[in-house]
Amino acid sequence: MIKIGIVGATGYTGAELLRLLAVHPQAQVTVITSRGEQGKPVADLYPSLRGIIDLVFSEPDVDQLAQCDIVFFATPHGVAQSMVPDILQRGVKVIDLSADFRIKDVAVWESWYGQPHGAPELIPQAVYGLPELNRDAIAKATLIACPGCYPTSVQLGFLPLLEAGCVDLGDLIANSASGVSGAGRQASIGGLHSEVSDSFKAYAASGHRHHPEIVQGLNDIAALADGALVNGAQASVNLTFVPHLLPINRGIHTTLYANLTDPGVDVQALFEARYANEPFVDVMPSGSHPQTNSVRGSNYCRIAVHRPNGGAKVIVLVVEDNLTKGASGQGIQCMNIICGLAEETGLAAPALLP
Amino acid sequence: MIKIGIVGATGYTGAELLRLLAVHPQAQVTVITSRGEQGKPVADLYPSLRGIIDLVFSEPDVDQLAQCDIVFFATPHGVAQSMVPDILQRGVKVIDLSADFRIKDVAVWESWYGQPHGAPELIPQAVYGLPELNRDAIAKATLIACPGCYPTSVQLGFLPLLEAGCVDLGDLIANSASGVSGAGRQASIGGLHSEVSDSFKAYAASGHRHHPEIVQGLNDIAALADGALVNGAQASVNLTFVPHLLPINRGIHTTLYANLTDPGVDVQALFEARYANEPFVDVMPSGSHPQTNSVRGSNYCRIAVHRPNGGAKVIVLVVEDNLTKGASGQGIQCMNIICGLAEETGLAAPALLP
Amino acid sequence: MIKIGIVGATGYTGAELLRLLAVHPQAQVTVITSRGEQGKPVADLYPSLRGIIDLVFSEPDVDQLAQCDIVFFATPHGVAQSMVPDILQRGVKVIDLSADFRIKDVAVWESWYGQPHGAPELIPQAVYGLPELNRDAIAKATLIACPGCYPTSVQLGFLPLLEAGCVDLGDLIANSASGVSGAGRQASIGGLHSEVSDSFKAYAASGHRHHPEIVQGLNDIAALADGALVNGAQASVNLTFVPHLLPINRGIHTTLYANLTDPGVDVQALFEARYANEPFVDVMPSGSHPQTNSVRGSNYCRIAVHRPNGGAKVIVLVVEDNLTKGASGQGIQCMNIICGLAEETGLAAPALLP
Amino acid sequence: MIKIGIVGATGYTGAELLRLLAVHPQAQVTVITSRGEQGKPVADLYPSLRGIIDLVFSEPDVDQLAQCDIVFFATPHGVAQSMVPDILQRGVKVIDLSADFRIKDVAVWESWYGQPHGAPELIPQAVYGLPELNRDAIAKATLIACPGCYPTSVQLGFLPLLEAGCVDLGDLIANSASGVSGAGRQASIGGLHSEVSDSFKAYAASGHRHHPEIVQGLNDIAALADGALVNGAQASVNLTFVPHLLPINRGIHTTLYANLTDPGVDVQALFEARYANEPFVDVMPSGSHPQTNSVRGSNYCRIAVHRPNGGAKVIVLVVEDNLTKGASGQGIQCMNIICGLAEETGLAAPALLP
Repeated sequence: MIKIGIVGATGYTGAELLRLLAVHPQAQVTVITSRGEQGKPVADLYPSLRGIIDLVFSEPDVDQLAQCDIVFFATPHGVAQSMVPDILQRGVKVIDLSADFRIKDVAVWESWYGQPHGAPELIPQAVYGLPELNRDAIAKATLIACPGCYPTSVQLGFLPLLEAGCVDLGDLIANSASGVSGAGRQASIGGLHSEVSDSFKAYAASGHRHHPEIVQGLNDIAALADGALVNGAQASVNLTFVPHLLPINRGIHTTLYANLTDPGVDVQALFEARYANEPFVDVMPSGSHPQTNSVRGSNYCRIAVHRPNGGAKVIVLVVEDNLTKGASGQGIQCMNIICGLAEETGLAAPALLP
Repeated sequence: MIKIGIVGATGYTGAELLRLLAVHPQAQVTVITSRGEQGKPVADLYPSLRGIIDLVFSEPDVDQLAQCDIVFFATPHGVAQSMVPDILQRGVKVIDLSADFRIKDVAVWESWYGQPHGAPELIPQAVYGLPELNRDAIAKATLIACPGCYPTSVQLGFLPLLEAGCVDLGDLIANSASGVSGAGRQASIGGLHSEVSDSFKAYAASGHRHHPEIVQGLNDIAALADGALVNGAQASVNLTFVPHLLPINRGIHTTLYANLTDPGVDVQALFEARYANEPFVDVMPSGSHPQTNSVRGSNYCRIAVHRPNGGAKVIVLVVEDNLTKGASGQGIQCMNIICGLAEETGLAAPALLP
Repeated sequence: MIKIGIVGATGYTGAELLRLLAVHPQAQVTVITSRGEQGKPVADLYPSLRGIIDLVFSEPDVDQLAQCDIVFFATPHGVAQSMVPDILQRGVKVIDLSADFRIKDVAVWESWYGQPHGAPELIPQAVYGLPELNRDAIAKATLIACPGCYPTSVQLGFLPLLEAGCVDLGDLIANSASGVSGAGRQASIGGLHSEVSDSFKAYAASGHRHHPEIVQGLNDIAALADGALVNGAQASVNLTFVPHLLPINRGIHTTLYANLTDPGVDVQALFEARYANEPFVDVMPSGSHPQTNSVRGSNYCRIAVHRPNGGAKVIVLVVEDNLTKGASGQGIQCMNIICGLAEETGLAAPALLP
Repeated sequence: MIKIGIVGATGYTGAELLRLLAVHPQAQVTVITSRGEQGKPVADLYPSLRGIIDLVFSEPDVDQLAQCDIVFFATPHGVAQSMVPDILQRGVKVIDLSADFRIKDVAVWESWYGQPHGAPELIPQAVYGLPELNRDAIAKATLIACPGCYPTSVQLGFLPLLEAGCVDLGDLIANSASGVSGAGRQASIGGLHSEVSDSFKAYAASGHRHHPEIVQGLNDIAALADGALVNGAQASVNLTFVPHLLPINRGIHTTLYANLTDPGVDVQALFEARYANEPFVDVMPSGSHPQTNSVRGSNYCRIAVHRPNGGAKVIVLVVEDNLTKGASGQGIQCMNIICGLAEETGLAAPALLP
């Protein structure tokens, strides 16, 4: 049994880790910490776990976490930075669901998150936890920086096109919409049912923290593509990203737009080939429209590709559950890889429908 | 591996069977039938099952179903009656999720369902599939009549009170509210999002098909209680039942009202003792208010008991998922009992929250 | 033009007053106060009022409010008490939407609201603002205590039965469900979309602040009925009240249960006669089930009466919009009465459907 | 009083006409037809209109409709074509909310709607009912073709940019999302609450009937712009349009993407100037994100413009209520223009919030 510690499990990604690990056959949560809820049974906060999880929240403590094989951070940004160095030193592996180690350029991180980075020396060794891109590196990593929810959907959707080098990198558009659990479990007027339900809006249209993370990922992918060099220089991605808030709890739907530079490419075949062996990426038949409820509560990502009238514009539709493939499920997928388990272990349950 | 057949799996209870059995370690669906969708892959109807369930709908056929160990019926009323006799004769056990064999009095069944009963000779041997009441009989049964969704919640909520004989049977009230999946997956104006969402209403306030089923169950329970005889005659339950339609997909919440005849009874202790060993019934601490999302997608039933100002009125709050503990999950719980498995097998996943 | 002041308009009842008064042909909001949002244009807080309401929130100030003809309080309890005495003294009439002056027994008020009452001397002159009961007194009042949202629905539903003296007062049950706007516009985890949506629960089953208000109202009604004296003593209402939280923004649905003492009464005719001349109470045909969306955003209250199998149990179904007939709309209805206008003035718009 | 006839008022746009006209001070519905519901009181179908609208559905009849001043068609496509010629001949003006007369090129219409056009001779005289574009022509029209819901939002969002000739017409993107009432009030599995709620998807990504209507409108606008001629030839719009289905009843949110050809343009000032005198178009302050609930049930359209990092990509966010400004409200706005009334008459009510 893999012994798991979770730091900061009072939010939705922490609760999602608990939900998924409760039925994982090879892992057991042994430590769960929360400064605010110390001493409280987990099941008091989440009645859905009554009779299933018997743990009590404890004060975060490195000695105690050092007894675990793997520690997950499900904390707001800034927290993992302060504890991860000590935990790694004790030989425990870390899977960080927060934004702390995703961005390689410290200055960019500091400018978007408005604070100095607490452990910049660890950034180079952090492996970006997107298995479809980094499976081998994840297997050997000691520190995983799990991708954000939006970045997962955008990168999985553009990946085959960028690897094939068949779209104009100078004009990529990601029009995304997320369920409200992505905003976390903090009291706020903006998150009230009366404000969110029966409504829809864009937000952060002029700039969002996930933008630099996505651009970094897309540039990394593009750099590996044939023909990535344009006149001897590396082409750089120009991405327009507009997130929207959906009146649903879980789910991200991303609609991607790109211009094909090679009109002869068979985009459907391209996607099917790229993801043929991926356990959690489902390329749907041509003409499909994936619906977020088809992945609700599951670790699957479903993708469909459209090319209206066979023109140069390619549209990619991507759905995932922001708490599962977009956060905690992906973290457990990384854990399975690190521990040499089949990637599907504990993650095979279908979506909850309806 | 237990080989499972499902008749009529195009509706929501059929889909729920598929979702739950997909991760059941001891059972495998081998036959799935639908007259309307014959030849179509199941995953085409339910994209959530893409990559998980590879079956194709086939024409219902007794020879094929006879290869199974257990056949579930997830059909509208009237269908099971016509096929069950042949299937039982082939030595296959049947778990019927429909209303066909729930009511013992054929005349009552025929009057509520408006058609002659097709297999009245089987009614006596059908065991009512409520494990908390009938565990031993279920273990030996060949034909299970699974309770309706409302009846499960009402009976589990009244059970300890009626067994203890401490409430006035002459004035029981069940005020229930169900998610809209209870109405099935048929095209209808009344089920449209624009009609259901952002709204709430009672329906069938003057009479509902589940009323006679509930009354039959409550009478059976009451008949076994100490003091059930009043002046030498069996007391009979008088139940007022008002169902309501909730703008949610899954979940039933039932609010029960009864008058205590013995004001000295400790109702909290009574419920806790009665359900102490039940794997799927959770009696919450005094003062609790169970929420339907705490059981969403799970087989749990959560109950809380209130007695305002310590008076004679006892209020019981019950939540369940109408598709799981209220239908398909309960059916699988019965299957586990029949097959000698632990009741929790394949049913231990926590609710999906949020 | 009636000059209107609104104290505390940053919540949902305040916003509802603004929405309704924006199209009232005889009234104009001239002062709107908020301590927290002083100096901010109203339309910045409520974009729905952009281009429609040009006012700016100001510091609450008696001199300024004294320029108005009528001042509404849309404040949390405790605020109106501290300002109303001064305002009344300046000859301005007050319509209080809060709970401050609803309960006649000061000790009861203080025990439920946990603070000393700030203006107990005004309680006797406060008129309970339920037009269907108190129309004449409202016309002459200087201080209106508008009923709570739940109390409006419960009292309108029981009114004809209690006036006719045909039900057992010792066992009345009100099973109510409210949209989440009833909880106001404060940041809270309990009100988040992720916590409320796709779920349902009871709350305060052992006691709610609206209970004493409803009981007071029902006792007042019952006291006027023929046969209200039982063996020379006044019968007293015994009410069980269980509120529930609906995953909708607006709307209350109340299901009432009572036992007829006179089985010969024609309850349908009773209700139709009682409300024949009421502009905002609609008694639906026998067998109906009113839906909350049929009154969404409107001042109507719809009622249907059921008597299953013609027995002694009478079921009354009542719907209203908790922000309109349950709060601000009713306040404006009172204002119309006070000002000698037709009661429907500015309140005739149909519900928003779908 | 303007006498109004409505043909086909059993759907949501018909119900919306009734809701709005119920409080219109200068118009009265006198005839309302439905083949399917003939003889039924309107209020039986729409309980929200009980006590407000007393009409009974009648068989469509030209003689009866000829008594009206204006006849609205709220019918599926194909119906208006068959009746409009006779009605116009009787001197009655027609406002058609359906798609019958929107597209000028008959062949295009016939190919998208899959049937021969029934009255092609009337197409040239039909005026496209977008007041912000065609106010003068509407005033003199006898036949109004009201724009579709998506086209209204896309055209109002692109209008200032195209009139100014400052964007690349060769790559316009409209990413739209609509509430489910846009799909009408027909029984369908796809429209069930259990299928739509708590989910989101794109649809018709490879082609939608509103695409040719939008392109026609944008080309008309572009043709009038300075610099519309490129090398002596008219530039033609190339539009990618992807509609999505929102789990809400009402509301459209459109996110537009375009590339500025003139980076020096002040887009905020451009939009503010263009719509300064429009009663129903609200250009929000720079940096805003309009929310659909800010226009729910109202005739307003709110727009915000973004230009991330001051680059060449301009993003326009547009919200409207698909049943009001996107259909019936716009129809009444046209009616007001035709009848010489202020455009806001009967349409000034703010949105329903929350």
